[in-house]
Amino acid sequence: MNKIKKVGYLGPEGTFSNEAVLKVSDSSSSIIPFDGIWDIFEALVSDEIDEAVLPIENSTEGSVSITLDALNKFDLKIRAELYLPIKHNLLVQKGKTLSDIHVICSHSQALAQCRNYLNKLSIPVHSMPSTSNAARYVMDLSSAAAIGNEILSRKYNLEILERNIQDYENNVTRFVVVSGSDMEEVCSNSKTSIIISLNGDRPGGLYEILEILALNNVNLTRIESRPSKQGIGKYIFFIDFEGHRNETHIRKTLDLIEEKVKFFKILGSYRQDFDGGD
Amino acid sequence: MNKIKKVGYLGPEGTFSNEAVLKVSDSSSSIIPFDGIWDIFEALVSDEIDEAVLPIENSTEGSVSITLDALNKFDLKIRAELYLPIKHNLLVQKGKTLSDIHVICSHSQALAQCRNYLNKLSIPVHSMPSTSNAARYVMDLSSAAAIGNEILSRKYNLEILERNIQDYENNVTRFVVVSGSDMEEVCSNSKTSIIISLNGDRPGGLYEILEILALNNVNLTRIESRPSKQGIGKYIFFIDFEGHRNETHIRKTLDLIEEKVKFFKILGSYRQDFDGGD
Repeated sequence: MNKIKKVGYLGPEGTFSNEAVLKVSDSSSSIIPFDGIWDIFEALVSDEIDEAVLPIENSTEGSVSITLDALNKFDLKIRAELYLPIKHNLLVQKGKTLSDIHVICSHSQALAQCRNYLNKLSIPVHSMPSTSNAARYVMDLSSAAAIGNEILSRKYNLEILERNIQDYENNVTRFVVVSGSDMEEVCSNSKTSIIISLNGDRPGGLYEILEILALNNVNLTRIESRPSKQGIGKYIFFIDFEGHRNETHIRKTLDLIEEKVKFFKILGSYRQDFDGGD
Repeated sequence: MNKIKKVGYLGPEGTFSNEAVLKVSDSSSSIIPFDGIWDIFEALVSDEIDEAVLPIENSTEGSVSITLDALNKFDLKIRAELYLPIKHNLLVQKGKTLSDIHVICSHSQALAQCRNYLNKLSIPVHSMPSTSNAARYVMDLSSAAAIGNEILSRKYNLEILERNIQDYENNVTRFVVVSGSDMEEVCSNSKTSIIISLNGDRPGGLYEILEILALNNVNLTRIESRPSKQGIGKYIFFIDFEGHRNETHIRKTLDLIEEKVKFFKILGSYRQDFDGGD
């Protein structure tokens, strides 16, 4: 008998992470909601779960800091990625209109992604742990509205008062599948993610790293700076590029980079997904 | 009679932004609290205020996205910067202990900066619009604690149950002073901030920009990517470097960069402050 694979995601049920985990897991897996991103990483490290699907980047709001910080801290690998288009809706109790609403609740990233829309409404907003928590709250409070997806309107019997209220049409979240190992096999369309910090912590040294990538014809797809937590002006860099760590020219490139930097970590190689937005 | 200078900041009274604005404004200025960062930018554009002091970067949490997005959108300049050490405290009603506390409230960045401390406590947290709002809320609710600075404990008659609860000792926030013009005069220790987006939106092109800086001996002090809101994988870059836009070698460097990029904007030149943390 095969062991059932346990896959963690940022719950509760009905979040965009729930949508993402359903897309990447086969039906034989057991999918498990967690309260927070940090908890998911701790469950991975302690082998409580085998794999997790985590948001890492949104096309409007930028990086999910806690996922980046956890990838830096824990010894885990990225084995896949997924782009999920994010569509936000204003959810209310059935029959309610905007004039009944005194507070709008959602996860802080969802609120941020609907900033222009919310500014026009001038109704106070309230940050909650998840879009799902917000929808459940609205089920009990007729003067509140939630921002969330269609799954939540069905789950909590809410009405969609307005659809697609996000500020930008191409609103896409990139999720990564994280586990103890990455994809060992080289495939076409592979991507590799690394973390580095520079000698002397000077961002000027970044030029030398990008030069190595350029001279070896490696195509950079993303670069993101995060504070190293060692003081202002000291950064670590998350770098993604095309190619697999087991390909000869990538292996050579990685060796050259490793020689130049203070800190070096390969987050993994995996099959590249393509932007799910239009 | 001189016109009184009006300076906006992220209120209410008692926030770290209030601390920052008191450090950079002379006593003859009128300092005005605002509800949100976006409101402050709109007040600047409509000449309701002359200047504003805005958080742009924290050494633990990274960039303040909304400040970066507003600097990209509005036609305003950075004319000064300030590094302010951030010390967080747990504030409660007098005589209360941890066992009385059922919820901890603060601004989401303050909560994030105390993540390890909060994880250990396992008390639910609640995100509020400001540290000051949180403290005011605690004044009315004996089962709540707030995270904030000493100013707030005095203002709302709260007790400091624990001091310096931030996860990292070198917790410093960088503030910028924004107005219609930057500092025209070249001074030693000048710094210049620009925003660019790359042709073809490919991050690989960043190498050519950093090469221009390196070949002209311009010292990069910061680089930060932000989504361009045009879809995943499309970024704008905020770049800071040493030197003033009116110095010959900087002017030449800026011209070379401008030729290479799709979008180019000088945010301003100003006197460099140095990390207020130890």
